[in-house]
Amino acid sequence: MSRLASLARHAAPCPALRTLHRPAAALAARPATVRHYAADRTSNPAPAKSTGTSKPGAPTTTNAAATAPDHRAIGHAQQLFTFHTLSPGSAFFLPHGTHIVHALMDLMRRQYRRFGYREVITPLLYKRALWQVSGHWENYKDDMFAVLPGNGDHQHDLAGAAADHTVVAEDTVAGDRHDGCAHHAHAALAGDESGLYGLKPMNCPGHCLLFKNTRVSHKDLPMRLADFSPLHRNEASGALSGLTRVRRFHQDDAHIFCTRDQIASEIASALRMVDEVYALFGFPAWEYTLATRPDAFLGEAKDWDHAEAALRDVLDNLPANKAAVEASQERVWREAEGDGAFYGPKIDVRVKDAAGRSHQTATIQLDFQLPRRFELTYERADNSVDTPVIVHRAVLGSVERMFAILAEHYHGKWPFWLSPRQVMVVPVHEGAELVAYANKIKGVLAMQDHIDPVATPWHSDSHVATHTSRSRRAPIAVDVDVSGHTLNRKIRQAQQNAWNYVVVVGDREMAEGKVNLRASWENQREATFARLDLFPAVGRAGAERAVPLAALPDVLEMLGEPFVEAALRGQA
Amino acid sequence: MSRLASLARHAAPCPALRTLHRPAAALAARPATVRHYAADRTSNPAPAKSTGTSKPGAPTTTNAAATAPDHRAIGHAQQLFTFHTLSPGSAFFLPHGTHIVHALMDLMRRQYRRFGYREVITPLLYKRALWQVSGHWENYKDDMFAVLPGNGDHQHDLAGAAADHTVVAEDTVAGDRHDGCAHHAHAALAGDESGLYGLKPMNCPGHCLLFKNTRVSHKDLPMRLADFSPLHRNEASGALSGLTRVRRFHQDDAHIFCTRDQIASEIASALRMVDEVYALFGFPAWEYTLATRPDAFLGEAKDWDHAEAALRDVLDNLPANKAAVEASQERVWREAEGDGAFYGPKIDVRVKDAAGRSHQTATIQLDFQLPRRFELTYERADNSVDTPVIVHRAVLGSVERMFAILAEHYHGKWPFWLSPRQVMVVPVHEGAELVAYANKIKGVLAMQDHIDPVATPWHSDSHVATHTSRSRRAPIAVDVDVSGHTLNRKIRQAQQNAWNYVVVVGDREMAEGKVNLRASWENQREATFARLDLFPAVGRAGAERAVPLAALPDVLEMLGEPFVEAALRGQA
Repeated sequence: MSRLASLARHAAPCPALRTLHRPAAALAARPATVRHYAADRTSNPAPAKSTGTSKPGAPTTTNAAATAPDHRAIGHAQQLFTFHTLSPGSAFFLPHGTHIVHALMDLMRRQYRRFGYREVITPLLYKRALWQVSGHWENYKDDMFAVLPGNGDHQHDLAGAAADHTVVAEDTVAGDRHDGCAHHAHAALAGDESGLYGLKPMNCPGHCLLFKNTRVSHKDLPMRLADFSPLHRNEASGALSGLTRVRRFHQDDAHIFCTRDQIASEIASALRMVDEVYALFGFPAWEYTLATRPDAFLGEAKDWDHAEAALRDVLDNLPANKAAVEASQERVWREAEGDGAFYGPKIDVRVKDAAGRSHQTATIQLDFQLPRRFELTYERADNSVDTPVIVHRAVLGSVERMFAILAEHYHGKWPFWLSPRQVMVVPVHEGAELVAYANKIKGVLAMQDHIDPVATPWHSDSHVATHTSRSRRAPIAVDVDVSGHTLNRKIRQAQQNAWNYVVVVGDREMAEGKVNLRASWENQREATFARLDLFPAVGRAGAERAVPLAALPDVLEMLGEPFVEAALRGQA
Repeated sequence: MSRLASLARHAAPCPALRTLHRPAAALAARPATVRHYAADRTSNPAPAKSTGTSKPGAPTTTNAAATAPDHRAIGHAQQLFTFHTLSPGSAFFLPHGTHIVHALMDLMRRQYRRFGYREVITPLLYKRALWQVSGHWENYKDDMFAVLPGNGDHQHDLAGAAADHTVVAEDTVAGDRHDGCAHHAHAALAGDESGLYGLKPMNCPGHCLLFKNTRVSHKDLPMRLADFSPLHRNEASGALSGLTRVRRFHQDDAHIFCTRDQIASEIASALRMVDEVYALFGFPAWEYTLATRPDAFLGEAKDWDHAEAALRDVLDNLPANKAAVEASQERVWREAEGDGAFYGPKIDVRVKDAAGRSHQTATIQLDFQLPRRFELTYERADNSVDTPVIVHRAVLGSVERMFAILAEHYHGKWPFWLSPRQVMVVPVHEGAELVAYANKIKGVLAMQDHIDPVATPWHSDSHVATHTSRSRRAPIAVDVDVSGHTLNRKIRQAQQNAWNYVVVVGDREMAEGKVNLRASWENQREATFARLDLFPAVGRAGAERAVPLAALPDVLEMLGEPFVEAALRGQA
């Protein structure tokens, strides 16, 4: 068996983010049944177990430095997510956790608009033939889920299909691999009557089908396709752990189809997106590793050399790297020679969180092989055809995993823009009139003013007005504390329960149409108040600020802008 | 066999929207293998085939009245979605189609905020035991997909599991049904080592697990859980047709857990949401059918009577119904006696589209049974426990199917707020300076001004400013036509390609910092211009209006508000 054929037998051709941390050199030596990201696992230990400081039902209030936070305890205390034995490894995101997932996805969608990505929604089930062409059916089988119609009560059908599978794999697909170019891809993709499906573990093969279905000109490149599809991988049940080791997850996944000449600018742009997002998250540091051509590789050495030179150049020109070099410090990236995947070089990113723990997160991978397997082409200006390069990239990586990292990084004190508990309104007593004022504030912030869905005649002007003037504004996650506890206790509880701001109202505030705004956390307070000082109408005194109710939505909207908040944090 | 046991053997206990149109009376007579919504199929014929008036690649420009539009032709011409033989019945939504799907989901999310729904994200795979408790495993098996770890190459495992299945079904679950109350649900839900999973065809069992995992007080009710999860149902391949008959789809699904006393107000609120959304879509008419207790039913007759009386009252009090009665016209709802499901009465909604075709869409279903099967309880004020009622409801129904209905209803001319092609900028010539001005307009509308992701130092003030002042504004889907064609041809093409507005710029407009705004469709023009007249800065003349570039984003934002647009359409 040739070196390449031996390689191809064992390799996952479609990289996708968490599967690529295994040095390619180790690849050929492993039996095909070895799970693909075993190497990644050891370098990413599950977070420390709950220290018991967080009781269920009571949000974590532990000092950051004292104990290592555990996202599972935070998730339980803050009712963010839960699990059930009937769906191991698949999180149930509760409303507050769903809020955070959406905020993360919305952030990425904003970046996508700026960076020229276009989002698609692709299928989850594909016939076996797709996974045979991509190579997953043979090489990734233990990590996948197979799907068949009906309730599985079809032993005969399945046995037949599985037997058939072996024949097809030998006959059609294994043959492709020997020359590295899928002569049979067209035929293999055309039909598959086995009745067997694979539930997708990655988006790349589906995106390749989409590209293949389109007639693409060089003018259409780079084509950047983003996809938040749920993905399923059959992690061993013993390895499952909170949101860091799951079977169902979402990625901020995208595939960039581009020409060789576009590699450098696409990588630069992807790294910039990483930098922006990680700075926003407030990670104290992150570093890049360039993994280069392994001994066993597919494709032309000159293509590798060209691409690697481009990647080195991009990394050298990162703002952080240039600053480091100017200050005679170490550069921010290192090279892992020979550590690339067999199908292309890649850049991995590791972040350090507030507790100093390190996590593998973003990855940017070049792929010269998958386009060949799927026989993808585009038309050049001279009407000849060429094969595009694919860049697989994710900034968050797994949304679930980044959720866990951020929960621990922030110790459960979510920044305002991510927070599912933004403003707690606290009346100083429970008099009916004051409680009504507190509820009015809640309505204004939640954009529920004027709306009683059942009572309001909805063809009325006020209905239309409600849908217009405020509709674009993000609603604030707000509640009112009418527990009857003392003022101090209510404020303290709101802070402990991770509400970002407490709005205190008494009779005087009600009479003046104002509220007292308090920032719950000290590191948030200074920055907030610095910003509030820009609003002439806002009073300045003590640990809280008097804000006219009319200005409150604007003030909070400004404070809730992720990049403003990050900038403020930088100043504080 | 008792009447109820016989019933339970054949019934799908978890209703979910498209499965419930079969009269319960017909239920007991059918063998368990009969597909569940066969009856629904005949009442919902697939749309007429393409008439050939729309050529692939050329957007539909046919006159609305002349031919019945076909969403598949529109989808192809406008590059909204596509299919592949390797994933039959699962749409690939292309970027423009994804835009529409997101706009529909965003609309529903806005409604959810107003109506007090909370969104969750739930797993797609559940062990067989869940579907056994819900009854799907036995009764819905032909419509489901079974899932097992690995690539299906496990005949022995599966055969063993399937055999095991029979035993469990007889032993644990069939027993539950005889008394209509799942004594074994707790045990059955606790564990399942078969290794077999079901890919969810509906969200209800997952939502029941979520409810069951929570300690619920009467103060927490009504609990309204919304979920846009992808669902999979194994429709026969011969029945697949565009977006109307699919295997993978999304619903604007929600389950309301409430007390018996809350049924009336929850149904009223759900119907109001239906009315608002359908009026927004501009459907000329829709009607409600109340399906009442069948001969064979589960539960207490008095609960049924109470619930049906409440539903009748709600329907009588619908604004449209009261208006009809006042005008001595027929009421807007009818009663289908004995047509309810065995687990509760329901209200189905049928809409008429612009071409006069009728479609079953929204449904609101009471369910007394599923809470019993899952042994769901909440605590009453006196600390005793009671079983909640579940309301299954969807307004759009299947998002895919509503997409198809709307594509045909609008003849591919999407209203501005839904449209993936909103503004085409047309320079009157291709001079470099004018093209630059056109591109500047594009940047302003797409919110890409000031941003060159690679070149701009992103810690700069301008970067933060970009992220703040405009960030909440929805970006406009905009392009520039630099084809070199004549002005008239460019305008005509933009209209044919379903761009809502054409922004024409010449040298004079550039000098004055203005644009000429044209509405592409006549029925849109009058309403637009009526609204534009409210802006003092906007000129008034002819078939277009001169708008200062600075005001353009505000003007378009106002025009893009769904409910404003609907109100304008009402005036025009």
